[in-house]
Amino acid sequence: MVERRKPIWIKEAVEKVMEYKKRGDGETVSILECDDRYLYAPLIADHDVPPFDRSPYDGFALKAKDTENASRDTPLLFEVIDEIGAGQVSLKMVGRLEAVRIMTGAQIPDGADCVIMLELVKEVTEGGKKYIEIKRTLHEGDNVSYQGEDAQKGSPLIDKGERVTPGIKALLATFGYSNVKVAQKPTVGIIATGSELLRPEDDLVPGKIRDSNGYMIESQVLRTGGLYKKYDNCADDLEALYKVMVAALEECDIVITTGGVSVGDFDYLPEIYKRLGAKLLFNKIAMRPGSVTSCAEIDGRLLFGLSGNPSACFVGFELFVKPYLRYWMHSDRPYTRFITGELNSDFPKPNPFSRFVRGKLSYKDGRVYAEPVGLDKSGVVTSIAWADCLIILPGGTRGYQAGDSVDLILLEDQQGSGVPWQERKLSKL
Amino acid sequence: MVERRKPIWIKEAVEKVMEYKKRGDGETVSILECDDRYLYAPLIADHDVPPFDRSPYDGFALKAKDTENASRDTPLLFEVIDEIGAGQVSLKMVGRLEAVRIMTGAQIPDGADCVIMLELVKEVTEGGKKYIEIKRTLHEGDNVSYQGEDAQKGSPLIDKGERVTPGIKALLATFGYSNVKVAQKPTVGIIATGSELLRPEDDLVPGKIRDSNGYMIESQVLRTGGLYKKYDNCADDLEALYKVMVAALEECDIVITTGGVSVGDFDYLPEIYKRLGAKLLFNKIAMRPGSVTSCAEIDGRLLFGLSGNPSACFVGFELFVKPYLRYWMHSDRPYTRFITGELNSDFPKPNPFSRFVRGKLSYKDGRVYAEPVGLDKSGVVTSIAWADCLIILPGGTRGYQAGDSVDLILLEDQQGSGVPWQERKLSKL
Repeated sequence: MVERRKPIWIKEAVEKVMEYKKRGDGETVSILECDDRYLYAPLIADHDVPPFDRSPYDGFALKAKDTENASRDTPLLFEVIDEIGAGQVSLKMVGRLEAVRIMTGAQIPDGADCVIMLELVKEVTEGGKKYIEIKRTLHEGDNVSYQGEDAQKGSPLIDKGERVTPGIKALLATFGYSNVKVAQKPTVGIIATGSELLRPEDDLVPGKIRDSNGYMIESQVLRTGGLYKKYDNCADDLEALYKVMVAALEECDIVITTGGVSVGDFDYLPEIYKRLGAKLLFNKIAMRPGSVTSCAEIDGRLLFGLSGNPSACFVGFELFVKPYLRYWMHSDRPYTRFITGELNSDFPKPNPFSRFVRGKLSYKDGRVYAEPVGLDKSGVVTSIAWADCLIILPGGTRGYQAGDSVDLILLEDQQGSGVPWQERKLSKL
Repeated sequence: MVERRKPIWIKEAVEKVMEYKKRGDGETVSILECDDRYLYAPLIADHDVPPFDRSPYDGFALKAKDTENASRDTPLLFEVIDEIGAGQVSLKMVGRLEAVRIMTGAQIPDGADCVIMLELVKEVTEGGKKYIEIKRTLHEGDNVSYQGEDAQKGSPLIDKGERVTPGIKALLATFGYSNVKVAQKPTVGIIATGSELLRPEDDLVPGKIRDSNGYMIESQVLRTGGLYKKYDNCADDLEALYKVMVAALEECDIVITTGGVSVGDFDYLPEIYKRLGAKLLFNKIAMRPGSVTSCAEIDGRLLFGLSGNPSACFVGFELFVKPYLRYWMHSDRPYTRFITGELNSDFPKPNPFSRFVRGKLSYKDGRVYAEPVGLDKSGVVTSIAWADCLIILPGGTRGYQAGDSVDLILLEDQQGSGVPWQERKLSKL
């Protein structure tokens, strides 16, 4: 007798996964190794930036008040009493009608309150002394970058759980983080099941195909920021699969299987969940592709049973695994990012289940468009390679037309989002 | 006498850089190491996908014509003559009122032309023989994934120069690329100049700041897909800098310096270009920040002289260095990606030079918005960490208001674009 499974909403499945969310530990890495890692602690300014009043240009520092009578017709002479390079500090006090030659980034000397750019003065030497001729009035603060104007000591700059970008790395360097505390990477066990699966190096033989899901998930895990440990392709052999699962559960933080989750005679995952004593969270979701996506829990560890169909497998990872991994790495926006856009093609066929169609984003005149790519079947692999978004077509009794407003999941996004079900009212998913 | 430099358009500067564009060599890596690498050759299907007609579901394969009289009231019995798992091939021919039990992914047996899903039949055993009861008519092709429907042998699937994503990795596995030919990574020499610069591990002292540009560029190079070699911070010392430049030119494919490109007394880069016999391509660009961005060429190698101001340095890399590196790695869309969006805030101050303002993208109801972040000064470092786009405000006599349509550069984009100056008519940049 074939088991009848009751599908749950996508929203509900995500919530069931996230009931078991946890934060991983932190580890310290060199700043040279921190790219794309998730910060374990917020980055707080431990000093003002700039740390002192400084000149953003090459020029001369002086007192603005002294220039109030300067003009094109009545230029004023200022004596140049010192010259300071970047990184140097003048020990002199700038007095009336005096100036100090100052380089970009150097500290404004005492007594001065503005800088005139090098290009705007004429340098003259008289009687062995250096002067500059100024033909305009200046105001206090002209060309001064004030201490703390970029960031004030104590202000929080970057939240914990943010992923390190070039700009964040620049801040880390600025605040002296030669070592950076980042979230440890979760280790994801990957087991592709199915006796039809060959390795990439194998020749094709009748009835078999090469495994693509395992490699795709490796790549999805890496893109999310995790590590993976791949286990041998398990033929559809219950005993062998059970042993590999036990090993993976010991060695990894979560385990992903592909295939074997349906209701067929060789779909061993349901039996293995039972044998492990794992608690089944769900085994059917109201979505296409990926309706047989399963998840079980044992001792707080999750076993994701993704579909063996490439597109279904891909979508299952993005929707259910990614937020779990991102949360693990301390992100407070672990969910996939949704935006709204306009559908470019008709989808006349209605579907009772919500559909995730591989699509390509485009932008025109400030608007977002999404075009379905390739064949919309769950077994298809090419369209995943061409997609940079998933077009969400909620289930219902009608199809969709070009021009319809649709929700889109950004596949290449690294910023994530808060709970999309609340934020975007996707309650019918 | 201060040197007067004539600014050139951004467009012109990019073109001058790209006159020296070249393609790097290829190298072969394991499929396990190909993530985020650029393909050296197009990926062409060397076999049909699927390689045979197969079943996307668990069920029974049979001849559709035999079901034409089946209905709820007049169910028909089909004898189950064989059972094939995925990866197996049936040797039997499906005859009239016969069926073969078939698993997801398995090859459709000879004689059958459709599949009925497991859930839709009743299995019965009579006289030691297995039968299924069918209560509906089927059509030829129902639940069959045809050979080549996903990809036909010989069709080009992915262009050379595309960056490997999870979907592309899945395709590589499908077509048996256990090793993948990818573009070699260019090595970028990075030299931060300036005697005001401390290392991240150094304590702050009066007049000095920690180097952030060098670390930021490391990260920008990595994000683009290149390698870097960092050289010791060069104090503002002409001789030391010259020696380091000579070494970097020998060891790297391009060299980036930060700082020292202005017209001040300690701005040694112009002198070093001369001493090296390098040809100056430009040393002033009509843009803010980054107007002093310079580029010189020697023996086909480029020396990028980026500003010492963090924001200017960041923008200079994105506009001028990134396309060069992406082209090197065989991308045919090496330029930064521009889209149009709506400005969220006023920018009342007009500027004769085009301005690149650090901004944050948002999306609402199918529209793109950009909000400036942080302080808009070239010396600022915090706003780079908060930005995911650059808002382009072309130079002119007027400022900008919230609601204005503006062009945006997507900083986190990995897809690139063709020549933006042609495509988006940004001719005034």
